[in-house]
Amino acid sequence: MATLIKNGTIITSGDTFKGDIYIENGIIKKIGINLVEEAEEIVDAQGKYVMPGGVDVHTHLNLDVGTAVATDDFYTGTVAAACGGTTTIVDHLAFGPKECDLHHQINLYHGYAKGNAVIDYGFHGVIQHVNNDILKEIDVLASEGITSNKIYLTYDYKLNDLEVLKVLIKSRKDGVLTVVHPENHDTVTYLREYYSKNGLTDPIYHSKSRPIDCEGEAINRMINIAKLAEEAPLYIAHLSCELGLEYIKLAKRRGINNLFVETCPQYLLLDDEKYKEKNDEGLKYIISPPLREKSNQNALWKGIKEGYIQVISTDHCPFNFKGEKQLGKNDFTKCPNGLPGIESRISLIFSEGVMKKRISLNKFVDLVSTKPAKLFGLYPKKGSIQVGSDGDVVIIDPNKKVKITKSMLHENVDYTPYEGIEIKGSPVLTIARGKIIAKDNKFLGERGYGKFIKRKKVDFSTIY
Amino acid sequence: MATLIKNGTIITSGDTFKGDIYIENGIIKKIGINLVEEAEEIVDAQGKYVMPGGVDVHTHLNLDVGTAVATDDFYTGTVAAACGGTTTIVDHLAFGPKECDLHHQINLYHGYAKGNAVIDYGFHGVIQHVNNDILKEIDVLASEGITSNKIYLTYDYKLNDLEVLKVLIKSRKDGVLTVVHPENHDTVTYLREYYSKNGLTDPIYHSKSRPIDCEGEAINRMINIAKLAEEAPLYIAHLSCELGLEYIKLAKRRGINNLFVETCPQYLLLDDEKYKEKNDEGLKYIISPPLREKSNQNALWKGIKEGYIQVISTDHCPFNFKGEKQLGKNDFTKCPNGLPGIESRISLIFSEGVMKKRISLNKFVDLVSTKPAKLFGLYPKKGSIQVGSDGDVVIIDPNKKVKITKSMLHENVDYTPYEGIEIKGSPVLTIARGKIIAKDNKFLGERGYGKFIKRKKVDFSTIY
Amino acid sequence: MATLIKNGTIITSGDTFKGDIYIENGIIKKIGINLVEEAEEIVDAQGKYVMPGGVDVHTHLNLDVGTAVATDDFYTGTVAAACGGTTTIVDHLAFGPKECDLHHQINLYHGYAKGNAVIDYGFHGVIQHVNNDILKEIDVLASEGITSNKIYLTYDYKLNDLEVLKVLIKSRKDGVLTVVHPENHDTVTYLREYYSKNGLTDPIYHSKSRPIDCEGEAINRMINIAKLAEEAPLYIAHLSCELGLEYIKLAKRRGINNLFVETCPQYLLLDDEKYKEKNDEGLKYIISPPLREKSNQNALWKGIKEGYIQVISTDHCPFNFKGEKQLGKNDFTKCPNGLPGIESRISLIFSEGVMKKRISLNKFVDLVSTKPAKLFGLYPKKGSIQVGSDGDVVIIDPNKKVKITKSMLHENVDYTPYEGIEIKGSPVLTIARGKIIAKDNKFLGERGYGKFIKRKKVDFSTIY
Amino acid sequence: MATLIKNGTIITSGDTFKGDIYIENGIIKKIGINLVEEAEEIVDAQGKYVMPGGVDVHTHLNLDVGTAVATDDFYTGTVAAACGGTTTIVDHLAFGPKECDLHHQINLYHGYAKGNAVIDYGFHGVIQHVNNDILKEIDVLASEGITSNKIYLTYDYKLNDLEVLKVLIKSRKDGVLTVVHPENHDTVTYLREYYSKNGLTDPIYHSKSRPIDCEGEAINRMINIAKLAEEAPLYIAHLSCELGLEYIKLAKRRGINNLFVETCPQYLLLDDEKYKEKNDEGLKYIISPPLREKSNQNALWKGIKEGYIQVISTDHCPFNFKGEKQLGKNDFTKCPNGLPGIESRISLIFSEGVMKKRISLNKFVDLVSTKPAKLFGLYPKKGSIQVGSDGDVVIIDPNKKVKITKSMLHENVDYTPYEGIEIKGSPVLTIARGKIIAKDNKFLGERGYGKFIKRKKVDFSTIY
Repeated sequence: MATLIKNGTIITSGDTFKGDIYIENGIIKKIGINLVEEAEEIVDAQGKYVMPGGVDVHTHLNLDVGTAVATDDFYTGTVAAACGGTTTIVDHLAFGPKECDLHHQINLYHGYAKGNAVIDYGFHGVIQHVNNDILKEIDVLASEGITSNKIYLTYDYKLNDLEVLKVLIKSRKDGVLTVVHPENHDTVTYLREYYSKNGLTDPIYHSKSRPIDCEGEAINRMINIAKLAEEAPLYIAHLSCELGLEYIKLAKRRGINNLFVETCPQYLLLDDEKYKEKNDEGLKYIISPPLREKSNQNALWKGIKEGYIQVISTDHCPFNFKGEKQLGKNDFTKCPNGLPGIESRISLIFSEGVMKKRISLNKFVDLVSTKPAKLFGLYPKKGSIQVGSDGDVVIIDPNKKVKITKSMLHENVDYTPYEGIEIKGSPVLTIARGKIIAKDNKFLGERGYGKFIKRKKVDFSTIY
Repeated sequence: MATLIKNGTIITSGDTFKGDIYIENGIIKKIGINLVEEAEEIVDAQGKYVMPGGVDVHTHLNLDVGTAVATDDFYTGTVAAACGGTTTIVDHLAFGPKECDLHHQINLYHGYAKGNAVIDYGFHGVIQHVNNDILKEIDVLASEGITSNKIYLTYDYKLNDLEVLKVLIKSRKDGVLTVVHPENHDTVTYLREYYSKNGLTDPIYHSKSRPIDCEGEAINRMINIAKLAEEAPLYIAHLSCELGLEYIKLAKRRGINNLFVETCPQYLLLDDEKYKEKNDEGLKYIISPPLREKSNQNALWKGIKEGYIQVISTDHCPFNFKGEKQLGKNDFTKCPNGLPGIESRISLIFSEGVMKKRISLNKFVDLVSTKPAKLFGLYPKKGSIQVGSDGDVVIIDPNKKVKITKSMLHENVDYTPYEGIEIKGSPVLTIARGKIIAKDNKFLGERGYGKFIKRKKVDFSTIY
Repeated sequence: MATLIKNGTIITSGDTFKGDIYIENGIIKKIGINLVEEAEEIVDAQGKYVMPGGVDVHTHLNLDVGTAVATDDFYTGTVAAACGGTTTIVDHLAFGPKECDLHHQINLYHGYAKGNAVIDYGFHGVIQHVNNDILKEIDVLASEGITSNKIYLTYDYKLNDLEVLKVLIKSRKDGVLTVVHPENHDTVTYLREYYSKNGLTDPIYHSKSRPIDCEGEAINRMINIAKLAEEAPLYIAHLSCELGLEYIKLAKRRGINNLFVETCPQYLLLDDEKYKEKNDEGLKYIISPPLREKSNQNALWKGIKEGYIQVISTDHCPFNFKGEKQLGKNDFTKCPNGLPGIESRISLIFSEGVMKKRISLNKFVDLVSTKPAKLFGLYPKKGSIQVGSDGDVVIIDPNKKVKITKSMLHENVDYTPYEGIEIKGSPVLTIARGKIIAKDNKFLGERGYGKFIKRKKVDFSTIY
Repeated sequence: MATLIKNGTIITSGDTFKGDIYIENGIIKKIGINLVEEAEEIVDAQGKYVMPGGVDVHTHLNLDVGTAVATDDFYTGTVAAACGGTTTIVDHLAFGPKECDLHHQINLYHGYAKGNAVIDYGFHGVIQHVNNDILKEIDVLASEGITSNKIYLTYDYKLNDLEVLKVLIKSRKDGVLTVVHPENHDTVTYLREYYSKNGLTDPIYHSKSRPIDCEGEAINRMINIAKLAEEAPLYIAHLSCELGLEYIKLAKRRGINNLFVETCPQYLLLDDEKYKEKNDEGLKYIISPPLREKSNQNALWKGIKEGYIQVISTDHCPFNFKGEKQLGKNDFTKCPNGLPGIESRISLIFSEGVMKKRISLNKFVDLVSTKPAKLFGLYPKKGSIQVGSDGDVVIIDPNKKVKITKSMLHENVDYTPYEGIEIKGSPVLTIARGKIIAKDNKFLGERGYGKFIKRKKVDFSTIY
């Protein structure tokens, strides 16, 4: 089975050029000028940008948080991803039962994903307690394609500094990347209780209970512990604020390498005024870390431009406003954390980043596809339009204008936080391993087409 | 009883001028030109600097660390202080028994000091666990003149972040200053065990087991928690390294006030090469935080000059090399932490700071006397040569040259870490509440002359 | 003749204490508790702050700019100063005729001041061209009490970089401080012409024609040239913006000493919105550097608090709005530069600085009196309340509320830029060399009382 | 005519992948897996890196400096470039006669290059005085393919700030990039005279006469003037020191875009100790800016890694040591400025950068080929291995070890500053527009094969 994409302007993280792409059996076999290969599927990309399919390394499908379960499973969630131009995800697992080994959740999620996902997928492991068995298991998981793990500094299964240090030392030895959710548990807990106890339970207090100091502190603590672990590779998830960035810059000034940073569209485009929306709609934006004061947005865009932030992912974690988010109606602490976004990422960043000249086309591709693929061992199969890579391609029409609204999205949730935002430039075709799986906002793929990807270990010195 | 000091060049933290000082009943009553008051004691200070007596707000007298007891008690320690030009100390208490209340150690130390101290003294409280009773006791202590407390982030009675936050919130409300020993416990503990377990037990591994990252991390964490506590006043004890300073600068850039910083002569003059001295003599320098790589010294002097560091104290905590420090002979972790310095502070900082033109005379006075007095509620009784202040005066002969050697010192310990350092400019007379208590390196005071000082609450907005 | 000031709270740059001050023959002879000396004049300062008289080191009296002459001469200007709590000024001379030697203007100004000034005064030299004779004259002037010189980087007699370098090298050798007006001439000139040529002649274009980049560039250039001159002492006049401060911070990080910085009340309190006032009133604020975007105010206050800025002076240079400033009615480039402020400085900084807790009382005294006195060789005669100093004292009533309005001021000009600002805390008595010269806003001194002060050379290492 | 490169690991600025490259008539037509196209020339690149040919945008061929002429002309210089893996140069012209127009030198250089150059080439214009005719000519030149110009702040035809401003404003409008040689003329001139006059004429005084402050000042001045010119695109040539980098960082923190920076191998690998070499050999390293104190090297590598420096070029400007450089034997000011390096750049940066893990392979390609091509309007013909690009390819054997020595180099000069440096990884084959022009250090091309490239205008928002 062959697909030929003709006449497009091909964008990679480094290059911009015109050419045709020939995909055979799911693999890019040739890139050429005026290719005349035969193909079952011939796509004319004249006037459009042809780039590697999006890679979203922070999603939460099927996530069970106890009081609620994320409304997108591996089918609906990946359908939405596909329609939005994303062809690979790496999912963050829910916590498992107390004391369970690392495989417990991996096995569970293999069950969730297999036969359901419509695009390729991987998993981050989740380390919720630390002992020798767990530390040994890190390398076993890596050999099975799980070459990164998530640790939390808050929530039920937070790790303390000693556990973090042990994980980082072992992970560095094993060539495994550690992803951290950085918020200071004790102070967040105190503030949540303080506001709750004093009847300050509107959504805005969610944001006040997790101020930038809690995130900044935790980021800096992690950086120092990773430094003590002989510069263990560290990946800061969902950076939301300038203060965190300041600590990252200070680390770079010190010469610390192996430090990687992710932010998400919500932190680039939305601010904490959202928490004040009427009719409890502020609840829609309850996430951790929370939306911040608006000035942080510029700081984050600058952090992207200067290279301190390398990845934009979604932290997609959808709960319906009706019923689920509204659990927090009378008390923000009861609201399940998370918002949807898997489908809008490519559009939003293209429109707000490239079209507004904040970043170049190549930087855009790097942020949403190439760099996450490289950092998480998916590259060069994913994140690249070069021969030998998987035929994962998204075609963007830079002239297509869209006003985002819930009804056009495939996410299985009753709202989008980006309602009403006007987009210029949007994906019009998504190809996964040579097969068209979405076109003009319509899903054309098939349930179960997605495969688990055994991710490789990464030489982090190849990143910069 | 009256004392008249004539013809000196009087140095305060702000001014330099010639004049006579008339002290009556322990209080400075007049400053004038050619005063002709009658006085029992007339001192000619022609050609010398007359400055407020030194205030050392970080000493450990009678300190019992379990395996050893600091060799200076409130008598020998304050005799040494007096000979070195210091007329007031604020002592840091040892930990008490588990779960004891705040008064337990205060009462014990009143017993140690009363009838023994030869100069005036105060105590910092020590908070070794946190509950409602303890939090309430903070204000009771303050009303009894204990307006600052020490907390530790490492050692046996370290506080966790929640406890720290509670202490800071309460202390801010009560107008009490919190002094912190900032080192990250988990990582230090891991590294100590790591080196010890692997037979890396020479003194140099003491320093490797407490790297700058551990101190820097903890400093920054404290700054953020204090910020969350609505900018609770925070005092960083014994800053040893440039990294910590970077975090302090970042905090100032953020506009954080009520942040105060102390360093000590050992961090300004000695470096980690000392740990490699032969015949186990590296043990003499085992302190926490440890001596650092030499480049940090310049950074600290610059931090002083730029105003980021306001206080130089000693952390005087003497153990004999023979017997006590040598407990660490085969394992640095067995060596009691601490070194002497109470007697040399004024000389060292005068000689290395003023005479080497790193700081002005006024800055010198501010660092070793006025600012610590202001920060810890001793001012204007202490730290000042103005009418109404206590007649605590030290006279420095800027031309006196001394080579520091153990035998000339009154500290009750068998070594000095400053052995062999050549000093230009040294105290020649110390007056406490109008009474000459030391002259030309000879103690002339009397046991028990020192009084407990009920320290006042401080309006920290008056500091800068 | 003797004066006794009783019961006040005396504030120096370092200390705060209660006491009486006895002044005899113009000199402070005694400071004591309950002094009982006889005195012709006894002042009760109970409940008030008693501080050294203000020192304003940047005034322009009798200034002839060609199209206009500053409306305050050495009589009216110093009367206003006295009423506002200032007892010493150091005046910046107008340019003299082309090629004139340094004494030309000094001699002229001696003529202006002698017999007219009501408070003591000094002059900065002005270097408007450079050759060997001029360079030699620097030390001659210094021996006559002119130990600082002004250079301009813009205006008619700007110096180029080579001339600046020569001046700085020679001045460093001679122990003379160089004051610089830092704006990049070429770019300012280009922009002025550009706006003028294009009919953009409203006052706001004055500010647009001298953007922060012009000032920042020149500040940084001066810092580097002074560094090349082996760290020649350099004093940045009238810093107006955060960008300039950034360069100063960078210099300090590099370890550059001998760098001193002044700002003025107008830059701390007013912003560039003022240029948009109706009825041409924007012309009132035409000064160079211009008022800046509001956010710079906070940056400057922070620069003060952190110690990067040491002096607050006025750059008092009054022209009547009617007639003189209105010359710029149809073209901002025709408006003479300058605004009045000599009388309001102490009030404004006390009220906005101390009462709003931005700075301490001691810092306030340091900024408006002690540090300028020290930097310009007036200390300890001026800038100090210590025995041996001149009896220059200002008494501030912290509870006196005033709304600033032109009619209450003694400045000989038809407006004040601070109209309508509400002040809390204001000078109520000014004493110069022991004599009351102003009380409750009324001038009580006499024409010609002020004397020329031969300023001393300064050891700049004594400043920090 | 066709060339097929098989089995190599292709490296672009963004990607690393295995594939074959098919070049037809000088253009890359296909990239594929196991291509079976017929080709006259088939190259097996198994085990080697295949990257876009080097682009050196800072060379000085045929340069006449009055006292000497650079020893490499467009033939010998480009032969050396080719052997070293460089396939495109953009040459910086010598100054022309006083008052000449911009075309004068361009025409002269067309004459030098045509029929001689063995690789493709472009020219930067040189602006040596400014008037309306010159300003208009900028766009004319651009239409002829000269889309960048060089300005000097020192030397005979330096521009003053007003001229610089005018050039930048016009160039911004015309979409032309301005390259600046930033050193403060007045201070350099003063110091040169000072040392010369005082008999301090050894090569080390060359470096002392052009200290970092002169370069840093000029860099910062240019940044500010470019900002005033509404962020005119600015390219800092040959950054040599950390101080310059600090100003660049400060500019980025301010949000200034369109600021691009180049360094050279000599600043990354050599330091000012070289000036002390015996037998006058210090003269070999006389360049401007000079070699710096060693610590600057690390700072520059960090600046590269963090993205503040985008280009590494050579500033190749060879003079024989015998005869020419030795003109400075008794006086460094007589020594012609410049050193050779066109042939060693790729080797040196590969070996010191990639093999020592300071930068990734992709970053390496970006620095020496892609980014200079993009910035100077050569892209995507040059700087890229993508279909449609010119078939300019260099093949590097990462295992080839070489000790650099003069005799192996083709530069027409009697020394190399890199003598004795051991290289790991070196170019083994150079292909220009599909033709092999160098192999294993042997030149196989032909005189005159190189063509002038009309460079395009650049949208600088596409760079980051």
